[in-house]
Amino acid sequence: MKWSELAREPCSIARTISVVGDRWTLLILRDCFLRVRRFEDFQARLGITRPILADRLRKLVREGVLEKVPYQENPTRHEYRLTERGRAFHPVMLALVRWGDEHMAGGEGPPNLYRHRTCGHDFHPVTVCSACGEPVSPRDVEVRSGPGRADETRTTAGGNS
Amino acid sequence: MKWSELAREPCSIARTISVVGDRWTLLILRDCFLRVRRFEDFQARLGITRPILADRLRKLVREGVLEKVPYQENPTRHEYRLTERGRAFHPVMLALVRWGDEHMAGGEGPPNLYRHRTCGHDFHPVTVCSACGEPVSPRDVEVRSGPGRADETRTTAGGNS
Repeated sequence: MKWSELAREPCSIARTISVVGDRWTLLILRDCFLRVRRFEDFQARLGITRPILADRLRKLVREGVLEKVPYQENPTRHEYRLTERGRAFHPVMLALVRWGDEHMAGGEGPPNLYRHRTCGHDFHPVTVCSACGEPVSPRDVEVRSGPGRADETRTTAGGNS
Repeated sequence: MKWSELAREPCSIARTISVVGDRWTLLILRDCFLRVRRFEDFQARLGITRPILADRLRKLVREGVLEKVPYQENPTRHEYRLTERGRAFHPVMLALVRWGDEHMAGGEGPPNLYRHRTCGHDFHPVTVCSACGEPVSPRDVEVRSGPGRADETRTTAGGNS
């Protein structure tokens, strides 16, 4: 499989990865959720070259994840804002944070704390089932072919041992 | 910032990305959750070269995400199984699937359906707060420095507009 073919794979993970499966893209998205919006600010935080940053931002705009909005005229300057499609990456970001907090923080504890404004408590994300509201673990999940799949060769049971 | 420095960043997203922020690594993990375990099976599904696959598997073993378990002797053959640390990536996988199902499936519908064995219903993952159990949206989250951070320069309010 070539990388450019991923977006056409009958797999939603492959399709998502075709949009954000790049290290810098994921870090740019992280910064977007921390309200970073300007090219220079992304660059200062990430320390990557201007061409790489410009390329990743261009792709995110093309994919409808970010929108380029003018915030100044003469000269015109733009900032990058998450679209609704971009904000929908929030669960991915929270899940990445959670894994890092649990498995990479060592004895020092997590670098950031997350407070849920609605209830006022520090929290971690929990993934629950949309049908019953209970937490979902790998063993609880069964995968089968859906409507958007022509062949059924790739589908096996979910979970793992 | 150099790529090799990501694991030492005071950011759990950067640290997690230092382990799985590679396209093929994410697809290998996807397959692990679909119970793929053998080198030849990964290769057949992903269509990547043996050296690339071997490199990614080696890294996942080194990071404690997969373990290499013998399943045959004379000659000895190994398979790759998710460790507890690896199974903890399940919420990341579910979140990637969900985004792809919602934003990349087009009119055909999702390529796979996910059934929650515990309740028997098809489901999608919902990210809720560990404290109050309510769904979490970007605007609801406030980020502040935690114990595992020496400097506070990177922390700003969460959410976005």
